[in-house]
Amino acid sequence: MTEDELVGAIRERIAGVPAQRLLLGIGDDAAAWQPSRSNRSVITTDALVEGVHFTRDAMSAYDAGWRALASNLSDVAAMGARPVLATVALGFPPGTDPAWLLACYDGIAALAKDARCAIAGGDLTRAPAIVVSITIVGEVRASNLKRRDGARPGDIVAVTGSLGASRAGLRVALDRPDLAGEPELAGALAAYRTPQPRLREGRWFGASRHVRAMMDLSDGLSTDLARLCAASGVGATIDLVPVHDAARRVAARTGDDADAWALGGGEDFELLVAIEKRAFPHLSARFAARFGHSPIAVGRIAAGAGVRLANGVAIDPSGWDHLR
Amino acid sequence: MTEDELVGAIRERIAGVPAQRLLLGIGDDAAAWQPSRSNRSVITTDALVEGVHFTRDAMSAYDAGWRALASNLSDVAAMGARPVLATVALGFPPGTDPAWLLACYDGIAALAKDARCAIAGGDLTRAPAIVVSITIVGEVRASNLKRRDGARPGDIVAVTGSLGASRAGLRVALDRPDLAGEPELAGALAAYRTPQPRLREGRWFGASRHVRAMMDLSDGLSTDLARLCAASGVGATIDLVPVHDAARRVAARTGDDADAWALGGGEDFELLVAIEKRAFPHLSARFAARFGHSPIAVGRIAAGAGVRLANGVAIDPSGWDHLR
Repeated sequence: MTEDELVGAIRERIAGVPAQRLLLGIGDDAAAWQPSRSNRSVITTDALVEGVHFTRDAMSAYDAGWRALASNLSDVAAMGARPVLATVALGFPPGTDPAWLLACYDGIAALAKDARCAIAGGDLTRAPAIVVSITIVGEVRASNLKRRDGARPGDIVAVTGSLGASRAGLRVALDRPDLAGEPELAGALAAYRTPQPRLREGRWFGASRHVRAMMDLSDGLSTDLARLCAASGVGATIDLVPVHDAARRVAARTGDDADAWALGGGEDFELLVAIEKRAFPHLSARFAARFGHSPIAVGRIAAGAGVRLANGVAIDPSGWDHLR
Repeated sequence: MTEDELVGAIRERIAGVPAQRLLLGIGDDAAAWQPSRSNRSVITTDALVEGVHFTRDAMSAYDAGWRALASNLSDVAAMGARPVLATVALGFPPGTDPAWLLACYDGIAALAKDARCAIAGGDLTRAPAIVVSITIVGEVRASNLKRRDGARPGDIVAVTGSLGASRAGLRVALDRPDLAGEPELAGALAAYRTPQPRLREGRWFGASRHVRAMMDLSDGLSTDLARLCAASGVGATIDLVPVHDAARRVAARTGDDADAWALGGGEDFELLVAIEKRAFPHLSARFAARFGHSPIAVGRIAAGAGVRLANGVAIDPSGWDHLR
């Protein structure tokens, strides 16, 4: 398959993705669009690398594509923004089956369609391993843009869902393929393979002036809360680590510690928010009315620095290091 | 060096890059900016991969960074746009010298400063080889946006400079390090290592309604003109292949064919334009008054399809295939 043929096949795969925002799509030197005149724009980039973030044994091409887009969409959600368009730079080794690449684009396209995020352009290149580098542009009303640095002592720290399922799914996918077919563990595998970025929740929180800081949980509650605290110049106490049922079920079979997965596992892509304390009960009720479940209060912002568990144990501030 | 330390050092390296357009820069889930209310936005992405586009033997870290940004800026120039901001996703193998990575960022920062392009954010990840994936957002007045598909029979095909120097520089860098120190070949090496994206020329052409189509020369005149023709539904004849003096000097030493480099060598990052025939003399004179040299007429757009040389020889339409 030549490059031009592959580009043509990719364009077919993404034909169903909404592209109304594009004035000019794939095929020119750049894509063009008209930014909303009343909003601010946000941009984020994130790469998914074979052998680092996934292996072809443990993750299908479709799931790799989905996952690569999901991690970027999650960052857009964490700003309170909606996605507008994405670019995809795809590197792959000589001899890669074109079917793998097209299935990867199917995964990107499926989530892009859900998220109403146009695919604006891309780049295909040879590379020593599969690398999916995605950049997303989003938009948000200036008053709804949420940052990491607004948390204040006394705020409630909450998350949009229980944690650890993605890490549990990774454990099954990597080490226990014998368990992969068990229906009761399917939720963990889905959390790992096709995570759902919290775009609606992010926009909802963005619209509330009582939400003082927001970020997404990509590296684990302990690490990410430490980052939010560092950005805000505050500390925090974690009172509760909400463990996903699917993580508990996997851990019961593998002998792992589901609480550790929930605290440090990463890639849950739930949102982490600091909410003004007196507003929390009402905000929580409204959130539940909108989304069918409450945000989960996991702790409190405190004066000072550093994150501690309720038992007083300090969390290692070094956290997850992508380069280790 | 930990990830946080590396991020801190990178932020120091890009501190001199203009960031006035950013409302929120590196360090949050996404960067934020206010798009111009009167312009359209463009976006393009391009990856530079070790072992594919460069080797650490033949190209310094600084030059690799410069080159990665240059290829993206050239795409922005080809739309008639000005750059606003860039994101940089950098993958590298465990054990990579942090000094290499910082020097790469120095190269990115130097060109970003020249081009007044903010560095809005990035991603650091392990990878099996160095991968620099850059995405640039630019802006352009709606009436100045140039596409590939507007060429019409009779138009003059012109380029912003003579060709082949980058390919000649690659030849020296890869195969003839013994020649690398020769002053008369320095121009070829510079064309390969630190190409100058034609941003001013692109904006100037963008402002002329007589420029009917524009793209940048990244894969060689023959291949890229064939793409412009295919997009426009026309053919073309190449009457003249302007060979860069530096390419001739290298070829004289290495026994290569400088004309072939100029026709098919790629990565010259000059602009390729189709200009209304009757407007060409006046436009050319005004261009020369502005930039100190004339655009070089290389051929004519014709009815039909395909690109031919003046001697009638058809150019292989398959062109450069990044995946071969």
